[in-house]
Amino acid sequence: MPDGGALILVPTPAKSLGDYAAIVGTEIVDNLRARAERFRGARVLHVNSTSFGGGVAELLYTLVPLWRDLGVDTEWRVIHGTEPFFHATKALHNGLQGAPVPWTVEMRSHYLTVNEDNAEAFEGDYDFVVVHDPQPAGILTELIEDRGRPKGKWIWRCHIDLTSPHRPVWEFLEPFVRPYDAAIFTLGDYVPDGFSGPEIAVSCPTIDPLSLKNIPLDRAIVRQVLRRYGIDPGRPLAVQVSRYDPWKDPLGVIDAYRIVKREVPELQLALIASMASDDPEGWEYYRMTEEHRAGDPDVFLLSNLQDVGSLNVNAFQRAADVVIQKSVREGFGLVVAEALWKGKAVVGGDVGGIHLQIEDGRSGFLVDSVEACAARLLELLRNPSRAAAMGRAGRRRVRQRFLSTAQLSDELALLERLSG
Amino acid sequence: MPDGGALILVPTPAKSLGDYAAIVGTEIVDNLRARAERFRGARVLHVNSTSFGGGVAELLYTLVPLWRDLGVDTEWRVIHGTEPFFHATKALHNGLQGAPVPWTVEMRSHYLTVNEDNAEAFEGDYDFVVVHDPQPAGILTELIEDRGRPKGKWIWRCHIDLTSPHRPVWEFLEPFVRPYDAAIFTLGDYVPDGFSGPEIAVSCPTIDPLSLKNIPLDRAIVRQVLRRYGIDPGRPLAVQVSRYDPWKDPLGVIDAYRIVKREVPELQLALIASMASDDPEGWEYYRMTEEHRAGDPDVFLLSNLQDVGSLNVNAFQRAADVVIQKSVREGFGLVVAEALWKGKAVVGGDVGGIHLQIEDGRSGFLVDSVEACAARLLELLRNPSRAAAMGRAGRRRVRQRFLSTAQLSDELALLERLSG
Repeated sequence: MPDGGALILVPTPAKSLGDYAAIVGTEIVDNLRARAERFRGARVLHVNSTSFGGGVAELLYTLVPLWRDLGVDTEWRVIHGTEPFFHATKALHNGLQGAPVPWTVEMRSHYLTVNEDNAEAFEGDYDFVVVHDPQPAGILTELIEDRGRPKGKWIWRCHIDLTSPHRPVWEFLEPFVRPYDAAIFTLGDYVPDGFSGPEIAVSCPTIDPLSLKNIPLDRAIVRQVLRRYGIDPGRPLAVQVSRYDPWKDPLGVIDAYRIVKREVPELQLALIASMASDDPEGWEYYRMTEEHRAGDPDVFLLSNLQDVGSLNVNAFQRAADVVIQKSVREGFGLVVAEALWKGKAVVGGDVGGIHLQIEDGRSGFLVDSVEACAARLLELLRNPSRAAAMGRAGRRRVRQRFLSTAQLSDELALLERLSG
Repeated sequence: MPDGGALILVPTPAKSLGDYAAIVGTEIVDNLRARAERFRGARVLHVNSTSFGGGVAELLYTLVPLWRDLGVDTEWRVIHGTEPFFHATKALHNGLQGAPVPWTVEMRSHYLTVNEDNAEAFEGDYDFVVVHDPQPAGILTELIEDRGRPKGKWIWRCHIDLTSPHRPVWEFLEPFVRPYDAAIFTLGDYVPDGFSGPEIAVSCPTIDPLSLKNIPLDRAIVRQVLRRYGIDPGRPLAVQVSRYDPWKDPLGVIDAYRIVKREVPELQLALIASMASDDPEGWEYYRMTEEHRAGDPDVFLLSNLQDVGSLNVNAFQRAADVVIQKSVREGFGLVVAEALWKGKAVVGGDVGGIHLQIEDGRSGFLVDSVEACAARLLELLRNPSRAAAMGRAGRRRVRQRFLSTAQLSDELALLERLSG
């Protein structure tokens, strides 16, 4: 415990739900306010493992202040961890997604020690505690053992695809999450077979239309961002925003681009990723992707190393003639919602949360091979008005189901259930 | 030598000088084109140590494509280096700026080995070779020893303040830079006493008005960026954009803010930095600054870790009521030009390149203490129309002297001198 104290509070700037009324309509906002009335003054704590980087931090950055605006006394805290602990929980994460990772006695011991220490540092009484992902999941068990069951309802929010976990890893984790009052999964399919104990809820992640990734940008800036990276705004552009890893299939995206390029020689492709300096696998896969690019000057591999932040990603998505998300495995794939929200037709892998977002043939296309991906890309590039119509359909769908307000509604529904 | 080959070529997107005519006037652009005519087809190589991060890479990113647009066949290559080499050259850099660093036999040996290896990998004939900063400076000597003096004119471009270097370090470097045909320094003051051999030129760095850091942004985005970080766009804001290190005096900036805050209780302060993950000193100083902030919710310490890229820095500078650059030592301080270009009055430390940029009392104020800094900040916050007038004067000065086109002109002048 670096400073021997409580879990670290993450400050979040205030947000007003009223600002979202212009986007989703006042009726939805009024409804949220009315339903939240019974929880006014309730104390809610969110616990996760990091205050920046990654989708969970991004979600909490929006949702925590919106809950506060609803009158609920909401806090966000991150656990204290050690380097070997985070090394172990990275393996745990990959194992839960199905990778046959080693799960050694040392790793278990780091997991237990850090969860024990954080349970010991845990302070305060809450009406609801939402614990995100496996890293801090053990705190509840440690608390129960030390001090008896804490007050309030405890909710485990799992952001991971648990369809086919590596058994030893899930068998280790399962006893720690069983005592929760409720567990939230991203998709019904992700609830592990035979998992019982908590109330099960399903709620998908959402995007914040007022975040820097999604706010409107004017054309001049969009064009200037392209030029900064050497992309010609006057020529067609396909964009995929994803980490460099095999599940996102950047090599397959380049292959599909090459097929289309025979018909559309002017086509450019931008692959955009956030690279963590402590992620050697990501670097290795970046190197492979760079090799696969084979010096093609119309393929752009970009990352935060070239100063590609949220506003730039926003600009790239807006500049795209077509957006690709050719994942072969995907927790949810919020970049699809981000692109649809910008009125772009998306060609996406037929997996995970992507089919919830793309209605095949309506707001884009689902594909399961390089050839199918190429064929659909070509179809959209040749029919810009069809692509635009699909983009409009996608934007409507995102407005209904994948904006922050939809997630507030899901979370309210769970609090209502838990409060009888 | 990781791949045994030549120095690594850095690709840069094309730029057109014509786009700058709208900003600096067609006359200046036409003049550059006419003067460059005699160098059409000449081969020019720039060599430095990194293709991203840092001011030199940023300059080359603009200037290399503009030289190409002038018809000069310009390349940019980075040297191969090892970790101990970069560790040694960091000490070399600090030593040249006056820090009493250790400069051990091992460090000298890493410097020599990497420069030897890069000289061995050096290929091609150039009419002009521009070598930036101390890291690759030894290549020329190694080439001369191995193969005899290479063709073409060799120019050492020093971006460092050499006013009072740590003697052992400068005595080590000086023999390597003496054989150059020319040496360019940022300010006349920075030419070391008694340095002779190369032709001496003075040319300050400049900003690119069309880069993402400087392009116009509309108010809606500026406000949204502030909100993202919890800053109230309706309240006054002072901004300093700098690394967290003692030379930039972030602690003094906070002290000055506190004095002003007694009179302007609504004042907010944002300190914005780019943090390198491999810079333990930067982290340590960040921690000290955070401690000095003492939890003040109106002081914002931001960095690239919170997704603050160039566009965001641009937005912060535009949002500021007043910009601070309270350096106690400064190579040049291009952030001053960036702020002046955005029409902001700047309160800057009375050091280095800052007095070249701020005309005291005309485009901002030069200060040499916390109290003076506070007094000038208060003066500007209380006289917004005076601040705006100073900002306009600053913008005019930047247009005349500190835009990329001025640097092209300086560099052309040196090529003209060297070509007799």
